[in-house]
Amino acid sequence: MFEKIRAAESRLQGFANVTPVHTSRTLNRMLDAEVYFKCENFQRVGAFKFRGAFNSISQLTDTEKECGILTYSSGNHGQAVALVGQLLDVRTTIIMPDNAPATKRTATEGYGATVVEYAPADQSREEIARQLVELHGYTLIPPYDHAEVVAGQGTAALELFQQVGDLHMLLAPCGGGGLLSGSAVAASGASPACRVIGIEPELADDATRSFHTKKLHTVHNPPTIADGTRTPSLGKITFPLVLEYVAAMQTVSEEAIIEAVRFLFYRMKLVVEPSGALGLAALLSGAVDAKGKVGVILSGGNIDAATMTMILGSSSDNQGKNLDR
Amino acid sequence: MFEKIRAAESRLQGFANVTPVHTSRTLNRMLDAEVYFKCENFQRVGAFKFRGAFNSISQLTDTEKECGILTYSSGNHGQAVALVGQLLDVRTTIIMPDNAPATKRTATEGYGATVVEYAPADQSREEIARQLVELHGYTLIPPYDHAEVVAGQGTAALELFQQVGDLHMLLAPCGGGGLLSGSAVAASGASPACRVIGIEPELADDATRSFHTKKLHTVHNPPTIADGTRTPSLGKITFPLVLEYVAAMQTVSEEAIIEAVRFLFYRMKLVVEPSGALGLAALLSGAVDAKGKVGVILSGGNIDAATMTMILGSSSDNQGKNLDR
Repeated sequence: MFEKIRAAESRLQGFANVTPVHTSRTLNRMLDAEVYFKCENFQRVGAFKFRGAFNSISQLTDTEKECGILTYSSGNHGQAVALVGQLLDVRTTIIMPDNAPATKRTATEGYGATVVEYAPADQSREEIARQLVELHGYTLIPPYDHAEVVAGQGTAALELFQQVGDLHMLLAPCGGGGLLSGSAVAASGASPACRVIGIEPELADDATRSFHTKKLHTVHNPPTIADGTRTPSLGKITFPLVLEYVAAMQTVSEEAIIEAVRFLFYRMKLVVEPSGALGLAALLSGAVDAKGKVGVILSGGNIDAATMTMILGSSSDNQGKNLDR
Repeated sequence: MFEKIRAAESRLQGFANVTPVHTSRTLNRMLDAEVYFKCENFQRVGAFKFRGAFNSISQLTDTEKECGILTYSSGNHGQAVALVGQLLDVRTTIIMPDNAPATKRTATEGYGATVVEYAPADQSREEIARQLVELHGYTLIPPYDHAEVVAGQGTAALELFQQVGDLHMLLAPCGGGGLLSGSAVAASGASPACRVIGIEPELADDATRSFHTKKLHTVHNPPTIADGTRTPSLGKITFPLVLEYVAAMQTVSEEAIIEAVRFLFYRMKLVVEPSGALGLAALLSGAVDAKGKVGVILSGGNIDAATMTMILGSSSDNQGKNLDR
């Protein structure tokens, strides 16, 4: 699997952004550690998802590319698939719930994708996907349970090791486990002593429970602000990878997530979505005890006005208290 | 003056951040130009002001340092002076209006500065400063009208030329003219063909009028959202520099400033304060016609919750329409 990540890295060259690494003097002083933030909020489409989508789609055969591709995601993965389709001249179809925000539909269509709506109460998106695949011969690019998607996501951590050297620990958010398992495999090859820790919201702790019991747990529609982690469970490919390569799983409260988004906004001047702030939430709340050189993947920056307004209004503690970065 | 900027650059090494340069594929496509954003929102204290404060204070004699320093600014310059004082072990006194937000006072005191309040209706801050200088022997570090402050501010543009090479034009916001004149002098030495253009809010167009009439104009307490440009006029040192080195001045509407802050937030995932977004506002509104390689100084990122909430709530056009950076 590590070789797949190396190969993905070559494929992404010239297409994905090599995202920068940021640090905070204030945070390092608070934690007595060196924390390196991998800024995937600066990735194309505003999230790491571009990596996996590009890596998988660019490897399709000409026939598969001519037939077109399909996915079900109204979030960052859907946008990433639509953009990659545009870049590689492949027709894309995105299945979206009929109650998805109009702006997300417009964004996806802006990349030339065809949007197919479904009623989430009556239909399953997987079933609709199966029907469309049969009817049109589309290739399905699922959001995380796909080896080449996982390999693509692993390139973010691989880049981070190249940028800052070996790490003692690396924190990655966990939804379906694509980014987390890719990061853990990348560490196993590039910085073997690095402990990779997956972070989930308490309200969406399926992967943490699956990790501890070694049986797949599921949480449906968890009401967490971290919408990128609302996937019900790890996948057939990601679960075994998480069990084999991940050192620990930790959960964080909604309050800790909000505090982390606020810290990134006020102190580090970074726009990061709640799912992207899980790693920092674990450090600030003490769920993970920072030691030595610590990597944190800020997985994305796609946050809407309502969510950011709520977060900025939730307290005024951080405002200007100590602005040095 | 260019030699002063070069000297400032050496002095700042290891103290100021070498801030990164960001770009936006979407913007470059929209404008058919190459725009390079110099991210001074990632500078220490969240604004370019650290550069001028450090450059001036670090050159004081031991006696001057022992007596302590003084400034009047409740904004980014005040914070910068307080932080530099802390770093160089120099006592700092900051004169602030008694109606300044409590958070700003707390932030300044957090760096170990002494805050002296005054009633802006009854007293002038310059008069209070004069009294304190006489009484205690403090050295005054004014926010912009000081050669070494201007030289420090000029290092941001100098760095930008080193990072991206020659530019066809460079846009800098203009308040008291420290950043603008420093940038223009830096260009004259480092990229002589570069046209440096100062950008002001329409509501605070004193420098634009001064530039065109060659007589100093003043605007008191302009009601612009760009609080960093509310200074009444250019200074004794900055006005002649602006006349000599700046190629043009342009103004932008409040709506254009808001749209620029929104673009930076949604598309580029950057937290930038309204004054910091003036250059982009000029490009997006067409006040300046982008040609070739264009530099834009994002001067700072210190924005409070109320202002950002207002800006994010002001329209939903940009939300997710096309998230590719």
